[in-house]
Amino acid sequence: MTETNWLWIGAIGMLAGSLLLFAAGGRRTQDEEGHSLVHGFVPLFAAVSYFAMAVHQGEATLSSGRVFLFARYLDWSVTTPALLLGLSMTALHGARRRVGLVAGLLVSDLVMIVTGLFFGASQVPFIKWVWYSASCVAFLAVLWVLFVPLMQEARARDQVRRDAYVRNAILLTVLWLIYPVLVLAGPDGLGLLAPTPATAGLAVLDLVAKVGYGLVAMLGSKAVTSADLIRGEVSAAEVVTHAVPSGALRPARHA
Amino acid sequence: MTETNWLWIGAIGMLAGSLLLFAAGGRRTQDEEGHSLVHGFVPLFAAVSYFAMAVHQGEATLSSGRVFLFARYLDWSVTTPALLLGLSMTALHGARRRVGLVAGLLVSDLVMIVTGLFFGASQVPFIKWVWYSASCVAFLAVLWVLFVPLMQEARARDQVRRDAYVRNAILLTVLWLIYPVLVLAGPDGLGLLAPTPATAGLAVLDLVAKVGYGLVAMLGSKAVTSADLIRGEVSAAEVVTHAVPSGALRPARHA
Amino acid sequence: MTETNWLWIGAIGMLAGSLLLFAAGGRRTQDEEGHSLVHGFVPLFAAVSYFAMAVHQGEATLSSGRVFLFARYLDWSVTTPALLLGLSMTALHGARRRVGLVAGLLVSDLVMIVTGLFFGASQVPFIKWVWYSASCVAFLAVLWVLFVPLMQEARARDQVRRDAYVRNAILLTVLWLIYPVLVLAGPDGLGLLAPTPATAGLAVLDLVAKVGYGLVAMLGSKAVTSADLIRGEVSAAEVVTHAVPSGALRPARHA
Repeated sequence: MTETNWLWIGAIGMLAGSLLLFAAGGRRTQDEEGHSLVHGFVPLFAAVSYFAMAVHQGEATLSSGRVFLFARYLDWSVTTPALLLGLSMTALHGARRRVGLVAGLLVSDLVMIVTGLFFGASQVPFIKWVWYSASCVAFLAVLWVLFVPLMQEARARDQVRRDAYVRNAILLTVLWLIYPVLVLAGPDGLGLLAPTPATAGLAVLDLVAKVGYGLVAMLGSKAVTSADLIRGEVSAAEVVTHAVPSGALRPARHA
Repeated sequence: MTETNWLWIGAIGMLAGSLLLFAAGGRRTQDEEGHSLVHGFVPLFAAVSYFAMAVHQGEATLSSGRVFLFARYLDWSVTTPALLLGLSMTALHGARRRVGLVAGLLVSDLVMIVTGLFFGASQVPFIKWVWYSASCVAFLAVLWVLFVPLMQEARARDQVRRDAYVRNAILLTVLWLIYPVLVLAGPDGLGLLAPTPATAGLAVLDLVAKVGYGLVAMLGSKAVTSADLIRGEVSAAEVVTHAVPSGALRPARHA
Repeated sequence: MTETNWLWIGAIGMLAGSLLLFAAGGRRTQDEEGHSLVHGFVPLFAAVSYFAMAVHQGEATLSSGRVFLFARYLDWSVTTPALLLGLSMTALHGARRRVGLVAGLLVSDLVMIVTGLFFGASQVPFIKWVWYSASCVAFLAVLWVLFVPLMQEARARDQVRRDAYVRNAILLTVLWLIYPVLVLAGPDGLGLLAPTPATAGLAVLDLVAKVGYGLVAMLGSKAVTSADLIRGEVSAAEVVTHAVPSGALRPARHA
């Protein structure tokens, strides 16, 4: 298999995953609708990025001769914040509470990806490793938010939601910990891995972390929504109906 | 008229349209203020883009020799989501309800524009037509949101708001349907139209779709606001006063 | 001192300032947490930008031979909206009220920075001065929002919050007024200042406007939060606790 074949596998797999996730997503409440959209759009963005790389539009040849597949960093700069937003919504029952904390989480993630992009584009070793270290520190900040303040928020929720958060946070962390190792070993880093196995590894990892994780997270979100609806813990304004009488929403708006 | 003349017409027309829309916009409620800002800023961004293209900063010459006016795609990546946000606000009475749906609409629109940018930058026919098709599919997703879930939301509102939504959604759709045809016929697509008529057509279409549509949408928003205020359907916290006594807002905040 | 030395001073000073501000920031309420995150992240972004410029990744050599340090405009496109968001939060007690106004302020600021970037990248005098003028007009729009509608909002708040807003708005305005003068005199503008003194001046100004101003603004935010908590003007849902019982938040959510 050539590197381009792996990029095509990524593109087609992500597109199929996106269609699957859009089809499987629930839309009973605003919370569930939000999760469905996050997990459907994440592989769609990745499919666009993989297609661009497969047709050689998402790459640049650096002066050293190394081919830098920059499109993956652009993909990650959109998709990783989206995944963290979904996780925050699980912990918080909607992301509007703790807006500052969620914004801080997404900004830390963006710093992680942008410094990663600079790492990949750098050729001078000293500069390269400063960017790599900065990216790792930002990753630690992301993990801190997931496992300290958001975990505390999740613990204050009901059992179903708490379990979904803990499962998703651990699964996402385990998958995301593989990225810095693969990127470090690959051509953008130490060059221990040749371009083709590095791209193959990242394509498989991306598919698991976006489509596989997305399925787990979305099924969790459906269970959470079902539990909320059964217990009657969802306000009328949060339920997505197909012809809401305008009167039904007035009390919430005028409160 | 040269192509550059048409770009200057675009720049000056958009600037004049922006000033007109900022001057004509109402600010009685937060909803009306939001509409005024959306419709004032949209032609302002377009004016910046047209000026950049008129002075040859918003273009790139591809290896085939084709001059690619990429600035218009950057303009559209900001202005088309802004117009859809305004339309969503009309359907929803504020965009905070159905946040997920509105975000999904804007992201679909962004996918439409970004894949359109890649289409314009591509030179290999196969790649070009994949991007064009992807952009059209994203456009269909945008239209679906406008005419299915947002239309259902609008139907649940009062008569004035519902009528404003239906009128604006149809007008915007008719205008936007011309874009893929013009772009397809122009130099970025099949090349049936020479650069000058293609730029002239897009300049006129952009002026109608941003300044003309903006005027219609803003007058609709003013009628909606007047009707809301007469019926007393606007809460105190939504009214933009010029020296709100702090006590007036406390009940809403502490609810 | 060489220009590169000044860029290193900027990078290290911003990093130290960011750590100081993150350490000093309070997290008792959502409002205070938001301010702490804004003022901690602003110098962190600036540190990334200064590092990129110090290692010659944040610059481009124009055809005239002028070295254009474009990274500072990318830094400003993120950090100046963040600072204005913090200021809006002070005036409004949370930025969710007057969402349209705050969005308009941030968009005006973004227009100011983007046109400033085009100014810096331009070499034809006519084009250059159109961009510079556009940037100044956008700056006037920013100042208008700060001193007319936001000042009216701040006047409707309590004494502590009002005083914090007035002090921060004046301090920020005085500092920001120096930027267009320095940039005009520097190599991107008239070239009255050589690159090294221009970079030195901007590094010192950036440190004062981000770390110094950040400290003043954050101490003001802490005083405001303390006053709010003493008077009991903060709802339970706004207090950031470390293990919120889920029941405590239900009334607000179901209201």
